[in-house]
Amino acid sequence: MPRPYTEERFTIADLHCAADRFSNWGKWGPNDEYGTLNYITPEDIVNAGKLIKKGKTFALGLNFDRNGPQINAWGNRFNPIHLMLATGTDAVSGRQDSIKIHYADDMISMPLQCGTQWDALGHVFYGEQMWNGYDARLVDSDGAQRCGIEKVKDKMVGRGVLLDVARYLKQDCLADGTAITIADLEATARSQKVEVRRGDFVIFRTGQMEQRLAAGAWGTYAGGDAPGLAFETCKWIYEKQIAAICADTWGCEVRPNETDDAQQPWHWIVIPKIGITMGEIFYLKELAEDCAKDGVYEFFFTAPPLPITKGCGSPINPMAIK
Amino acid sequence: MPRPYTEERFTIADLHCAADRFSNWGKWGPNDEYGTLNYITPEDIVNAGKLIKKGKTFALGLNFDRNGPQINAWGNRFNPIHLMLATGTDAVSGRQDSIKIHYADDMISMPLQCGTQWDALGHVFYGEQMWNGYDARLVDSDGAQRCGIEKVKDKMVGRGVLLDVARYLKQDCLADGTAITIADLEATARSQKVEVRRGDFVIFRTGQMEQRLAAGAWGTYAGGDAPGLAFETCKWIYEKQIAAICADTWGCEVRPNETDDAQQPWHWIVIPKIGITMGEIFYLKELAEDCAKDGVYEFFFTAPPLPITKGCGSPINPMAIK
Amino acid sequence: MPRPYTEERFTIADLHCAADRFSNWGKWGPNDEYGTLNYITPEDIVNAGKLIKKGKTFALGLNFDRNGPQINAWGNRFNPIHLMLATGTDAVSGRQDSIKIHYADDMISMPLQCGTQWDALGHVFYGEQMWNGYDARLVDSDGAQRCGIEKVKDKMVGRGVLLDVARYLKQDCLADGTAITIADLEATARSQKVEVRRGDFVIFRTGQMEQRLAAGAWGTYAGGDAPGLAFETCKWIYEKQIAAICADTWGCEVRPNETDDAQQPWHWIVIPKIGITMGEIFYLKELAEDCAKDGVYEFFFTAPPLPITKGCGSPINPMAIK
Amino acid sequence: MPRPYTEERFTIADLHCAADRFSNWGKWGPNDEYGTLNYITPEDIVNAGKLIKKGKTFALGLNFDRNGPQINAWGNRFNPIHLMLATGTDAVSGRQDSIKIHYADDMISMPLQCGTQWDALGHVFYGEQMWNGYDARLVDSDGAQRCGIEKVKDKMVGRGVLLDVARYLKQDCLADGTAITIADLEATARSQKVEVRRGDFVIFRTGQMEQRLAAGAWGTYAGGDAPGLAFETCKWIYEKQIAAICADTWGCEVRPNETDDAQQPWHWIVIPKIGITMGEIFYLKELAEDCAKDGVYEFFFTAPPLPITKGCGSPINPMAIK
Repeated sequence: MPRPYTEERFTIADLHCAADRFSNWGKWGPNDEYGTLNYITPEDIVNAGKLIKKGKTFALGLNFDRNGPQINAWGNRFNPIHLMLATGTDAVSGRQDSIKIHYADDMISMPLQCGTQWDALGHVFYGEQMWNGYDARLVDSDGAQRCGIEKVKDKMVGRGVLLDVARYLKQDCLADGTAITIADLEATARSQKVEVRRGDFVIFRTGQMEQRLAAGAWGTYAGGDAPGLAFETCKWIYEKQIAAICADTWGCEVRPNETDDAQQPWHWIVIPKIGITMGEIFYLKELAEDCAKDGVYEFFFTAPPLPITKGCGSPINPMAIK
Repeated sequence: MPRPYTEERFTIADLHCAADRFSNWGKWGPNDEYGTLNYITPEDIVNAGKLIKKGKTFALGLNFDRNGPQINAWGNRFNPIHLMLATGTDAVSGRQDSIKIHYADDMISMPLQCGTQWDALGHVFYGEQMWNGYDARLVDSDGAQRCGIEKVKDKMVGRGVLLDVARYLKQDCLADGTAITIADLEATARSQKVEVRRGDFVIFRTGQMEQRLAAGAWGTYAGGDAPGLAFETCKWIYEKQIAAICADTWGCEVRPNETDDAQQPWHWIVIPKIGITMGEIFYLKELAEDCAKDGVYEFFFTAPPLPITKGCGSPINPMAIK
Repeated sequence: MPRPYTEERFTIADLHCAADRFSNWGKWGPNDEYGTLNYITPEDIVNAGKLIKKGKTFALGLNFDRNGPQINAWGNRFNPIHLMLATGTDAVSGRQDSIKIHYADDMISMPLQCGTQWDALGHVFYGEQMWNGYDARLVDSDGAQRCGIEKVKDKMVGRGVLLDVARYLKQDCLADGTAITIADLEATARSQKVEVRRGDFVIFRTGQMEQRLAAGAWGTYAGGDAPGLAFETCKWIYEKQIAAICADTWGCEVRPNETDDAQQPWHWIVIPKIGITMGEIFYLKELAEDCAKDGVYEFFFTAPPLPITKGCGSPINPMAIK
Repeated sequence: MPRPYTEERFTIADLHCAADRFSNWGKWGPNDEYGTLNYITPEDIVNAGKLIKKGKTFALGLNFDRNGPQINAWGNRFNPIHLMLATGTDAVSGRQDSIKIHYADDMISMPLQCGTQWDALGHVFYGEQMWNGYDARLVDSDGAQRCGIEKVKDKMVGRGVLLDVARYLKQDCLADGTAITIADLEATARSQKVEVRRGDFVIFRTGQMEQRLAAGAWGTYAGGDAPGLAFETCKWIYEKQIAAICADTWGCEVRPNETDDAQQPWHWIVIPKIGITMGEIFYLKELAEDCAKDGVYEFFFTAPPLPITKGCGSPINPMAIK
């Protein structure tokens, strides 16, 4: 039997213990595929709308192209490949004269996890199960028969809160390996005078993406070491009842891993057991600067996923609107 | 020299005449790549936020999968191909034990014009030029060097208006070839008690997509005949100064073409000359039902494009929020 | 325990019995990944070279393009998608002037099983095992860790023999569902005065592809009913010790299936148990006509696979040379 | 008017002069799409068959996978992406039970120029024209309407000759920038006691690929500096009337370019003006060792292209057979 969970010790047994403590399985019934997005109420959305006061929009999506972060990437991920199906050069060369219209068409091949993205609840498993206890084998070569991203196509709307941890700690970029604790999150929120509430889309900033963009080289951004949330924040996420957690890193979680027993132990808990939708590789520069300037760290937030049937995630271009 | 434009006659000369009359080239300076999205002001966005009164969200994106409308499609378009990079069956089969995490990853190959989408201003040309007079040859095999969809990544936010033409005309689905006139648009708006204003995202409904979904067969939906806007509506779009025009059909425009001299003559004008961003293949069923029920045809609207660098469009999942 | 195999009865028990009788597992050692390609000796290749007497070449590969047979296809197969990375229209439009060369580049996305192809030994499993007893789970989302097509990159050379069953039976095309028996194969060989020998690449012709090409419509060619080898031919293939078996149909095997207990029961045996490499969707028209004309049904044969690492097959353009 | 061509001077004028001198346009009629492959006669093929004396096969195709040479590649080329459509892990996980067969399927996305390959005659242009004077604009976003690789699907068979320049010069690998001259080619052939004849597939070896494979890093192999044929060899290729020219480098031609006026000036002549099919990125290690050992530098050669309709090239796995 797993020992009671404490933050002081951290082995696979602790991980299993945390899994038990922070499980939301069954909370919204046996057929639920929304997870913590259930926390958002219509009132929350109405109230979020009231945060639109300046009419200022922030696109948090990194451009999708061959210069993306997927260098020496995790698994078989690669950067987006954009390809043309018809071009203006065809048009001007007379190759479209017979069809009596001049146009350009194009396509893209891209991993759903290659850039700014939502992880669907079918993206990470706890042992042989996914969110709510569904069999992990239901995610096969034909896609996620359960917990696909298309299931939450109308759910990604609500109040957004930025926790600018890097700015609070007066750093341009938190060092790789920095584990952001519950105390850090709380202190950041306090210093920003913003309260994290049930149903929020919480976005925290480490500065890592901006550092890499400034350097003009991604290095090990996608798959390597990073600042990020400590394992103990599972508790905070669970108890705060937030709707989603997002960051400007490739995986939200601190790396190197806080234990040798698991790869990304925090992922083991938050996606399949808490049932939270995770947003990664968010571009936060202008939003963070604006929040620092006007002192307002809350905003209307929406990041509609592409409803890719049976998708384990979706590229997105999240909008923060103040 | 082209004759003065009149709606009674319609040849290539009329088309060129309309191009002259309704051109916005240069209106926002020689370097503009936003077109009519320039009409949206911060105040418009603030006011749009006030339309969020019920906290009800509508996802207008059709699911992206192999059952999409691209059957015998225009050009070389095809339906989305969703592919797995890692699966739950791998995980349960022990193939991920060495990496100490169980996960699934996936990817997609899809034309940017295959489903619910924005057409970028680089999508259609007028002769050898695109929006604002840029050389069409700037859209080459490497993509749209000008007027790519990534340029407007933070622009797709504002007031949405639904013009439910089919419902106004008491039809489930307008017949293929039905040309919706300015009078039809105005009458629909009047009957719905909604005013179309500068900077709006105007979405009109023909019922065609719902008909095809109900039939379980797309038929010639993508590329064939359709109800849609008459050529004369170029004038309305130009004068109304709307930000974007969207529909539940594959191309907004009536088909068969209203002239033998051009393929989709309305496209020749509205995208490259007026500079309007077009939204196509919108799924409108629940939104239209809700508007009919509560009589409110305006809402907060946002449809952030994926910022695909040099893209001629983007798949989207537009959100209407009431 | 399975009953002794007889051709009169055919259930899953018979299938298992055949699997035992015709298994080559271990025959070439525990690490073998060649299967019956081991039967080809250097002398066979030298002798095959002597069959080149006229200097006439036959390309047996069907063109790879969007008009291929994958209509309503098996699994998630689709027709090849050919895409341009650089074009002559770009070149002539001046878009390549800065690089001082005018060129065109292109790419392809295609299932390895979509057209003329080799099935690798990792393509079909017997229960939880593949050829030689390897664990089927070694074919995961990262590809075939065992029995990938790259392993046999230099093996596809030898004597080819055409068994023109359709011509022997005086039919343009054998009817769907026609089960070609051992007696049919033997009679065809006899009538053609050609002997099938150990190490041969045996290609049989049903006429089905030519019929579909003539009709201009593939219909259910890929995945539907077809003439093809009866289950009993497992015995013939095993005993003849041929190197490979190929046909002008999508799957060599007769369809509908000869039993309700298994999909393509012959596949269950010949690939994983006998260890034979299978060639499908071969284009045979001109070769068959030439053989009928000169009465020579043997030739030099080579069909080098693309050495796609961990591939479960490869598109090919087989060459028959007389 | 261009000056008479001499090897001593080399400007764009010389290039144009060479283009005139070495043009084969019209030689095989106005509709020809084979170029120098026309030089191969049936007798040549019969004689080539007689070179099969040992029954030994050499696969000259580099494996196609994500570890290929396309690092920081030319244009938008990338390494092959191999993807699974069905897996053994699905099979063993019970996900295929309902279809009563256990199998794996897969696909590939790859540039046709990313690995061992034929360049089609539609791959490089001379000004606004391709081979035989066809308009370069016929290679548009829909592919090569002329001179596509599918046109020569049965032509790639004949006598192969290896010119092991590196071994002749007693080097493991010629240094980048080494321009191989006509004299070098002739001396190599003489030392190897092999005669280059009309209709031959001539393969020369620089050792560059083997060096990079041994180093475990491709570096600038694809697109950067390389040893290769001097511009003057256009004359040799033209006069020798060989069928094809192939090498173990990414582009056959020496780099850096021998002139500032053109990128890969030799390509300007040999593909569009001489009409020769070029083979690149050939893996030659074992073949070269065998030739050095037995002193026989001629062999039966075949490298059937995938007949990709309108393709500007094809990945291949060339077979040399001795």
